[in-house]
Amino acid sequence: MDFDELKEFFETHDKFLILTHKSPDGDTLGCGFALCSMLREMDKQANVVNSENFPVRYNFLYDGYYQQDFEPETIVAVDIADEQLLGSRLMQYAGKIDVCIDHHVSNKMFAKQTLLDAEASAACLILYEFMRAEDIPISDHEAACLYTGIATDTGCFKYENTTPKAHMAAADLMRFNFNFVKINRKMFDIKSKDRLRVEQMMTAEMEYYFDDRCSVICLTTEMMKESGAEPAEFDGLASIPLTVDGVVCGITIKQRHEKVFKLSVRTTEEMDASAFCRKFGGGGHIRAAGCEIEGTLDEVKAKVLSAVSEVLGVSADE
Amino acid sequence: MDFDELKEFFETHDKFLILTHKSPDGDTLGCGFALCSMLREMDKQANVVNSENFPVRYNFLYDGYYQQDFEPETIVAVDIADEQLLGSRLMQYAGKIDVCIDHHVSNKMFAKQTLLDAEASAACLILYEFMRAEDIPISDHEAACLYTGIATDTGCFKYENTTPKAHMAAADLMRFNFNFVKINRKMFDIKSKDRLRVEQMMTAEMEYYFDDRCSVICLTTEMMKESGAEPAEFDGLASIPLTVDGVVCGITIKQRHEKVFKLSVRTTEEMDASAFCRKFGGGGHIRAAGCEIEGTLDEVKAKVLSAVSEVLGVSADE
Repeated sequence: MDFDELKEFFETHDKFLILTHKSPDGDTLGCGFALCSMLREMDKQANVVNSENFPVRYNFLYDGYYQQDFEPETIVAVDIADEQLLGSRLMQYAGKIDVCIDHHVSNKMFAKQTLLDAEASAACLILYEFMRAEDIPISDHEAACLYTGIATDTGCFKYENTTPKAHMAAADLMRFNFNFVKINRKMFDIKSKDRLRVEQMMTAEMEYYFDDRCSVICLTTEMMKESGAEPAEFDGLASIPLTVDGVVCGITIKQRHEKVFKLSVRTTEEMDASAFCRKFGGGGHIRAAGCEIEGTLDEVKAKVLSAVSEVLGVSADE
Repeated sequence: MDFDELKEFFETHDKFLILTHKSPDGDTLGCGFALCSMLREMDKQANVVNSENFPVRYNFLYDGYYQQDFEPETIVAVDIADEQLLGSRLMQYAGKIDVCIDHHVSNKMFAKQTLLDAEASAACLILYEFMRAEDIPISDHEAACLYTGIATDTGCFKYENTTPKAHMAAADLMRFNFNFVKINRKMFDIKSKDRLRVEQMMTAEMEYYFDDRCSVICLTTEMMKESGAEPAEFDGLASIPLTVDGVVCGITIKQRHEKVFKLSVRTTEEMDASAFCRKFGGGGHIRAAGCEIEGTLDEVKAKVLSAVSEVLGVSADE
């Protein structure tokens, strides 16, 4: 569907329920709350929902938001590529989604109608372009929501998916009255005391192999328990091993069960992470992929390092 | 001077020596090498110089650059607010600078003519706007240089000095053929093994005061020596204490001499770092300031914490 069709869809429907994906991020929430605000401004009833509670980390996106009391008639999904991402609480809407607004090339086209732009850096960028193209006024709060989605999904304009359009949208949106510095600080710089401790612990334990071209961090259930930090503080550590100068392959080995370990592999352009993980029955993107391997930690590490040595063309004993 | 005057100046002069500031960053070097390339493209002779050797970290900016052999006739300074920033090797040019291109509001107007735009996020943004306004072609390498200066001076579009114009320039520049992802990774994500170890050491030693609203890291000469890391690896640690959630005042205490410590203070909008440091005879910006305090580490810490407790309105014993 195109922008005009979406506009007409919004105008001819009401009682919107906006679904955001599980483990919500700045893009799904930013897009959800901006859309909800836009629809309410059009005198429609609209609510945003998530399978979990909205994370406190994103509280500035739902500041002033309140749940309206109505029976949903129109179901919209934002930033959701696959119904599996709805999460248990929203799974009841699978098969019933009227419109999906998304930017993932992998979108399963599960909705009755889909506005898909796989070139867009973020779902928020699609909604922004829709609002501008259709001359729908943008409020300060909506601008903050849209900016947040674009900034978070591009790693603050740092990643490969950053496009000239993303920068143009940011240039336009930052003219609105919201504090983008505070948002960026909160999204990119601030960590909890526990998180900082966890990262410090991981860095201290990091191992280097093959002339420092491969770095590995291992995280056992015992280490997590001993740290006293919440399990969520151990998410998203996978990028750490690759931050070291010269490392082309950064591996995070995290214990799932007694003899099951989850591997997260991050690589520079010298190595294909997805191909590497397929060897162990996993997969993913070319620079970020994952798999599960069974065995003791030592066995898993030996298997992984042997496979890395093959890819790097070096002896496994280095 | 304005863009047209600068264009005429370049056209009517030759044998340019482009001065960049000491402790060079991405903006002074990006602007210097882009300008040099532009002038050579205009069939002028031009060289870029710095008081030190060009840091390897920025080698992609001077990739393919070679020193031309000529006696300088025209001296241009880029991103230099004060002749003190020339550094010892370039101090010979003080009083002899023909043109300065700069974006610091504090520019001392030491040059015969100055193109100053204190609203610009970076000197590179001024040069970019000059080239676009005067229809001077931009090469891929010049685009990479200009992008780097804008990205580094704005913390990758994260800081307060980021403007719509900075985003517009980025949108335009990234259409050229250079790898902005690789540049951003190198500028913002990659650390040396030693640096990572130093940061890990500092985080491990971080102390919290006043209900975790103030965090302090102390760095003694002995700690630096024991670590085995190069002194440069201990620069720029001052932002670490403020990355912790809830902290409004982050302080780094670094030993200079036996009984002299350098304080770096970073604050959120709840506290004026500059006013704080003035109490100790220092100064700086409202969110980033510094001073020197004499005494043993314990004495210095006691003085500092007592002053912080006053500002935060809490008892010093907390």
